[in-house]
Amino acid sequence: MKLSKELVVQAKATFGTPTYLYDEAVLRNSFNELRDALPDCVDIFYALKVNPNLSLVKLIRSYGGNTEVCSLGELEIALKAGVDPQDIIFLGPYKKPEEHRRALEVGVFAIVVESETELRKLSALAGELNCVAPVAIRINPNFSASGSPWKMGGRPTHFGIEEDTAVANFGDYAALPNLKIKGIHVYNGTKILDAQSVYDNAKYILGLFRSLTRRYNLDMSMVDVGGGLGIKYYENENELDTRQLKQLLVPLFEAFNQQFPQTRIIVESGRFIAGKCGALLVTVDNIKENHGKTFAVTDGGTNCHGAAAGSGQVLKRNFRIVHATGSTGAPLREYHISGPLCSPDDLLARDLQIETLHEGDILAVTASGAYGPSASPTLFHSHGHPAEVIVSNGQLFLARARQTALDIRDSHADVPLAAMLGAAPAPAPAEPTPIAQAATQRQLGEILRVVLKLPENTVISADSHLRDDLGLDSLTSMELLVNLEDDIEGFFVNPDTIAPGHFNTVATLAGYIDAHRQPAVVRRSRTEVQHEGV
Amino acid sequence: MKLSKELVVQAKATFGTPTYLYDEAVLRNSFNELRDALPDCVDIFYALKVNPNLSLVKLIRSYGGNTEVCSLGELEIALKAGVDPQDIIFLGPYKKPEEHRRALEVGVFAIVVESETELRKLSALAGELNCVAPVAIRINPNFSASGSPWKMGGRPTHFGIEEDTAVANFGDYAALPNLKIKGIHVYNGTKILDAQSVYDNAKYILGLFRSLTRRYNLDMSMVDVGGGLGIKYYENENELDTRQLKQLLVPLFEAFNQQFPQTRIIVESGRFIAGKCGALLVTVDNIKENHGKTFAVTDGGTNCHGAAAGSGQVLKRNFRIVHATGSTGAPLREYHISGPLCSPDDLLARDLQIETLHEGDILAVTASGAYGPSASPTLFHSHGHPAEVIVSNGQLFLARARQTALDIRDSHADVPLAAMLGAAPAPAPAEPTPIAQAATQRQLGEILRVVLKLPENTVISADSHLRDDLGLDSLTSMELLVNLEDDIEGFFVNPDTIAPGHFNTVATLAGYIDAHRQPAVVRRSRTEVQHEGV
Repeated sequence: MKLSKELVVQAKATFGTPTYLYDEAVLRNSFNELRDALPDCVDIFYALKVNPNLSLVKLIRSYGGNTEVCSLGELEIALKAGVDPQDIIFLGPYKKPEEHRRALEVGVFAIVVESETELRKLSALAGELNCVAPVAIRINPNFSASGSPWKMGGRPTHFGIEEDTAVANFGDYAALPNLKIKGIHVYNGTKILDAQSVYDNAKYILGLFRSLTRRYNLDMSMVDVGGGLGIKYYENENELDTRQLKQLLVPLFEAFNQQFPQTRIIVESGRFIAGKCGALLVTVDNIKENHGKTFAVTDGGTNCHGAAAGSGQVLKRNFRIVHATGSTGAPLREYHISGPLCSPDDLLARDLQIETLHEGDILAVTASGAYGPSASPTLFHSHGHPAEVIVSNGQLFLARARQTALDIRDSHADVPLAAMLGAAPAPAPAEPTPIAQAATQRQLGEILRVVLKLPENTVISADSHLRDDLGLDSLTSMELLVNLEDDIEGFFVNPDTIAPGHFNTVATLAGYIDAHRQPAVVRRSRTEVQHEGV
Repeated sequence: MKLSKELVVQAKATFGTPTYLYDEAVLRNSFNELRDALPDCVDIFYALKVNPNLSLVKLIRSYGGNTEVCSLGELEIALKAGVDPQDIIFLGPYKKPEEHRRALEVGVFAIVVESETELRKLSALAGELNCVAPVAIRINPNFSASGSPWKMGGRPTHFGIEEDTAVANFGDYAALPNLKIKGIHVYNGTKILDAQSVYDNAKYILGLFRSLTRRYNLDMSMVDVGGGLGIKYYENENELDTRQLKQLLVPLFEAFNQQFPQTRIIVESGRFIAGKCGALLVTVDNIKENHGKTFAVTDGGTNCHGAAAGSGQVLKRNFRIVHATGSTGAPLREYHISGPLCSPDDLLARDLQIETLHEGDILAVTASGAYGPSASPTLFHSHGHPAEVIVSNGQLFLARARQTALDIRDSHADVPLAAMLGAAPAPAPAEPTPIAQAATQRQLGEILRVVLKLPENTVISADSHLRDDLGLDSLTSMELLVNLEDDIEGFFVNPDTIAPGHFNTVATLAGYIDAHRQPAVVRRSRTEVQHEGV
């Protein structure tokens, strides 16, 4: 990924940081590198879990990629990206009934079934819908991918049906009503950097397909050998050798294809396709010494990029971090690179040797196209989802807007306090009742109409912002306060308690009024409102 | 937290699972337990990072709690909850310029400054805004909280200014223009279950306040001794002894208060207040044997509750999980409780002994009110944020709606593929150009108007859903296909390729048409459109 200083500075100037930058050229190269390592008889399915960004999915589709989805959310993204349902498979150890239903409705190529329970449920649902569900059976094999640090097969996991059970019962699966068993699926590990391991894995699965086909005399049209192809993250790793991979896989798959020309061979890949194209850009906010270490505090950490911060790892190793605004050859210094969270583990890097940093410098965490924001706790400390930007031919495209503070605030329902406290023991004394609040809000609304000379059709609600929605400014504020004192019985402005925050919305100002008027008046106004309601 | 079977079943029936359930009575009890352990001269500040749910914040405020926020998002939530800005402090090792600005604008009680750089920036900003910024200096002390598994002080972290530096330079801080140094803040650790450790910590900080006051002859009005009070999560832990805490803290704080009656003493607490009130409800979807282990696969795992799944821990220990729909006394069995993710680590519990489970059973992960959904990667696999529900006096209130698949899909920008590919090498051959697509979409729109007899003012866009927006049904579908073949040159429906998914939106059906009509016609229509544009 080429990160010129100009590009990075432009990205920051346009979209701010923290921001994920995805390079279209690198994405395409990675896809093509994999495509070149596989014979034409193999179809590549991109795993959306790795990065479900709609624009990336569109691009990958335009390169010839199909998609593998694990949820209704991912399915809807794939459909919106224009992927033909026949180029989608749906897997995952748990699927909601509505996920099964939607997958059948749109006509995906296969639902990868991961338990006998799911098989029964799907058979029943397809019967209800009067259709035939296209199914692949996920098998957890008696075999582990040797080169994977996270083994998913050959050991107890919640994936698939274990091999002995699946082999013994496969004939029964094929006999279930309203199902068409199209084939099998095995996914054995992830982050594999050894071509031989990918080959051994694929060979084992093709063998399993052959033996099931023979044993039950089945005519299956799909075999999914998984994937798990890794990329280099750390100093001590090497990139997967795709030339060796090609030498091993082409004869293997071509021989299989000659024997089963009607069978779609699927290789899944997520990390290998998307991993290298992405970088997380963060800005250095401040630099400080603390108990013998130098910290560069940035605006994005674990909340934006859990993997780089070492979530889920016992030993934290540093992703490669580039000083995107530095000069090559500047003297190196050692830093802990931290994020903004109030957690001592919020470190993007420990003891990182990098060109001397200054406030405002931009750092790029590379190899971050896979398992970035979608795999991170983006709502931690309510910072929100970072921006995501595609760079292509030097142009920048906003692919996902940064989540704003108001987005986050308004994702919460606004349940009235009185409703929640209900018949509970006496509420805190300072709390005005919602009935009194509503009355005050209405009265305040009328006063605002007069003072601000609002057009008659202006809608004023509790959430109306006095400045942004209604146009209150510092001059009219003074006039408003005078009117409030005149019109609202028992209310006097106290300069010691009134603060700018009270002038936020109708609700906040009404809340201040209720909290600071004479209690007797509050009670009276409540009675008035109750009369109105009779 | 009392989780009656009826309540849990009702919550699931009303809101589905995975869902967080927060018990108002438990929240109130926890707050009051802490309130009782502290003398009246101490103010409690609830840390929103622990759980920013607006309804929880409203409730805690109604009990008399103040708030501590770490981001603009948290500040806006606190304000919406009706918290008086004078009862808000704003901290965090990184703050955006707009966070400083907003904190000054609303008039928070103090901005807790964590570096000398921040102090300079804030001084400059306050100068620009012509105001005086209320500041507390966060100090990273030469002292560690003995009982905390996650030490934040006395060792290198990105928090605060280290004690020696702060003590040496405090006089300079106080001399900076446009700042009022109101006091100090120390936060030393978290998950502390030993009352003596809380006491030692507070005593150290009060001593630091005294010595700074003396040394620089300052009149400071705030001291924040942090908090870090833990709750019991695991079998081998005991709850914090709040009676012992009271015996230790009351004389300590009262003596300080007699010496500094004008100084607001702040204790922060998040986990202790909110932790015990919450449970994550998940439903068992399927149960299977896999390589010698029994798995209960549920609909919520790491994506809903990273802490319970052991994210960030070296040794995973099980949270207490209750079989909410089981019968007490039923025989116990051992399970791995997994979530829905395609990660072998997506386990809510390992080797859990629990009453025999069946499909459809509901499990409650207890002690989950703190660091639940907001600290979890809720977008992983695009499953989305779980629902959050308050239970109070037997009534359920939806406090945060479940994020839907379409919410997630539509959070992505819809960048046109052609724009991203721009002058890139030839796009994939199957990809119809956006110009041809637009023409086909327009033509399809006109045909839809006729077939569906749509009112003239119906807006038809690329995203219009044929069924939901325009009212297409199975009968009119047939009529539509006949009309398409009649009206669109070179297009014939192929029953082998058309699938229900193509009938999603105007764009998907137009895409199918373009992909399946005679190429010559596509070229011609493109030319036509170009002429239109001239």
